[in-house]
Amino acid sequence: MDAVKLVEVGARDGLQNESRVLPAAVRAALINRLVEAGLTHIEAGSFVSPRWVPQMADTDEVLRQLVQRTGVTYSVLVPNSQGMAAAVASGCREVAVFAAASEAFSLRNINCTIEESLARFAPVIDKANAEGIAVRGYVSCVLGCPYTGRVAPQQVVAVSKRLYEMGCQEISLGDTIGAGTPGAVKQLVSACAVELPLASLAVHFHDTWGMAVANCLAALDAGVRTFDSSVSGLGGCPYSPGATGNVATEELVYLFSGLGLNTGVDLASLIQAGGYIDEQLGRTTSSRVARAWRAKHRVQHEEATG
Amino acid sequence: MDAVKLVEVGARDGLQNESRVLPAAVRAALINRLVEAGLTHIEAGSFVSPRWVPQMADTDEVLRQLVQRTGVTYSVLVPNSQGMAAAVASGCREVAVFAAASEAFSLRNINCTIEESLARFAPVIDKANAEGIAVRGYVSCVLGCPYTGRVAPQQVVAVSKRLYEMGCQEISLGDTIGAGTPGAVKQLVSACAVELPLASLAVHFHDTWGMAVANCLAALDAGVRTFDSSVSGLGGCPYSPGATGNVATEELVYLFSGLGLNTGVDLASLIQAGGYIDEQLGRTTSSRVARAWRAKHRVQHEEATG
Repeated sequence: MDAVKLVEVGARDGLQNESRVLPAAVRAALINRLVEAGLTHIEAGSFVSPRWVPQMADTDEVLRQLVQRTGVTYSVLVPNSQGMAAAVASGCREVAVFAAASEAFSLRNINCTIEESLARFAPVIDKANAEGIAVRGYVSCVLGCPYTGRVAPQQVVAVSKRLYEMGCQEISLGDTIGAGTPGAVKQLVSACAVELPLASLAVHFHDTWGMAVANCLAALDAGVRTFDSSVSGLGGCPYSPGATGNVATEELVYLFSGLGLNTGVDLASLIQAGGYIDEQLGRTTSSRVARAWRAKHRVQHEEATG
Repeated sequence: MDAVKLVEVGARDGLQNESRVLPAAVRAALINRLVEAGLTHIEAGSFVSPRWVPQMADTDEVLRQLVQRTGVTYSVLVPNSQGMAAAVASGCREVAVFAAASEAFSLRNINCTIEESLARFAPVIDKANAEGIAVRGYVSCVLGCPYTGRVAPQQVVAVSKRLYEMGCQEISLGDTIGAGTPGAVKQLVSACAVELPLASLAVHFHDTWGMAVANCLAALDAGVRTFDSSVSGLGGCPYSPGATGNVATEELVYLFSGLGLNTGVDLASLIQAGGYIDEQLGRTTSSRVARAWRAKHRVQHEEATG
């Protein structure tokens, strides 16, 4: 069976956009449940200042509490060399850097131009490469910017290519505002594939305008095999009014399973992991698959017990 | 610009699955707003016994209160010859009959076998054809049955072909339990297209498992150009535990617009029509497009005024 790679970002991109701050032990417990469910690529946190992102405080403690299993990779987001030093000290085997395809977003989100952000990442990526640590490069606003609207595919290609040439093995194309549609996704992936290996591309969709699953299907059609998602649809984006979170991992497991593609994930265990973190956050799931699955099994249980 | 045809089913399939019963005037006001928004094919009600479906009582009164406009077609569901007589008396120009691809569903839902249901529809369809009234045939459970699970595509093809040959000009393939995935959609459409003209096929998706938009995209890729949807995602299905409603019309307008396909619908007016009916029902929208659109315009308004 053909396989796709899911990159679970709920414990980082998801939780950092939820208002409730959770202790390290709870975040580690979530991640350990995600591993039990079969996920093998999991973003575990970020080494940023807890003053800016209190949700990601004590990421080193989270990492210490994670089960180590062959074939499972944990990554952390690092904004600069300081963060990279912390990642190395914690024994991380993968890190991620975060750039934007929109100047306006870069300025407002990370307080520097795209060029300045790349200059800041250069020593981070060099250090990772020297240490044999894998590096993932996020590119945000690939299908639109909350401040300026349209973003040209060539701008996305340019930033992605720079990150790849600087030493990022994987480039995650993020539709930060969740407004993209499948035709634009295909055009973007095709444009990127001219300059970068398809196998190095991942897509990262938010479901703000309800297009995330369809956009994943379009990216799959265009040859992408790596998909970011968030258990229970955790998160959102503070820069996108009305933003829902990342596409739910449950939806992608269901989609790919239906298409005969192996994700390695057990849906029931995944839904249970989502239930755990939703309870900790006091939220209800935004995964339709999780809701439908629970309703179906409740009925089956009632039928079985009379 | 290429066009797609949207068949708005919110005022029938949607409202009949909402628990609150609305008076004819409110249902007519909804439909008139949908016409204002640019929809041209609208299911207005059904001539069934109000004892069974109180939500559809007084459909003749709804029809009397609708604006008549060139290019706008209202249809009604008719279960039998009695319903057909009422449709003729009301001056309807399009009717719909409702069959199933699953024997178990047919028996439990309309209390007869598939064959018996077709025999019951024969005089209905003959009458419509004789009166120059268009007929649409629904086929439910095309991607699965709530009672028996899997439904073979050939069973869907067989029922669809029968309805077409009996005189239905359009066959709407309904994923009643909302559990289908895009690969199955493509296979189903391809199988039907062997026996029926592609132009006669419509698809009708529920978003229970979050796949509805992706399934519409798959159907579009397979050549379908007619799509059923429900404003604000009204409805659900009493036979599908945890079922959400039909795919929201807002999502399809947004999807197709992004793909450069003309729907003729003004999204802002459509979202306002959805807001009207949600208020009448005391529900919140299940359309993510409506939510995102409102959030975006609220922020723009605040920025403009604040």
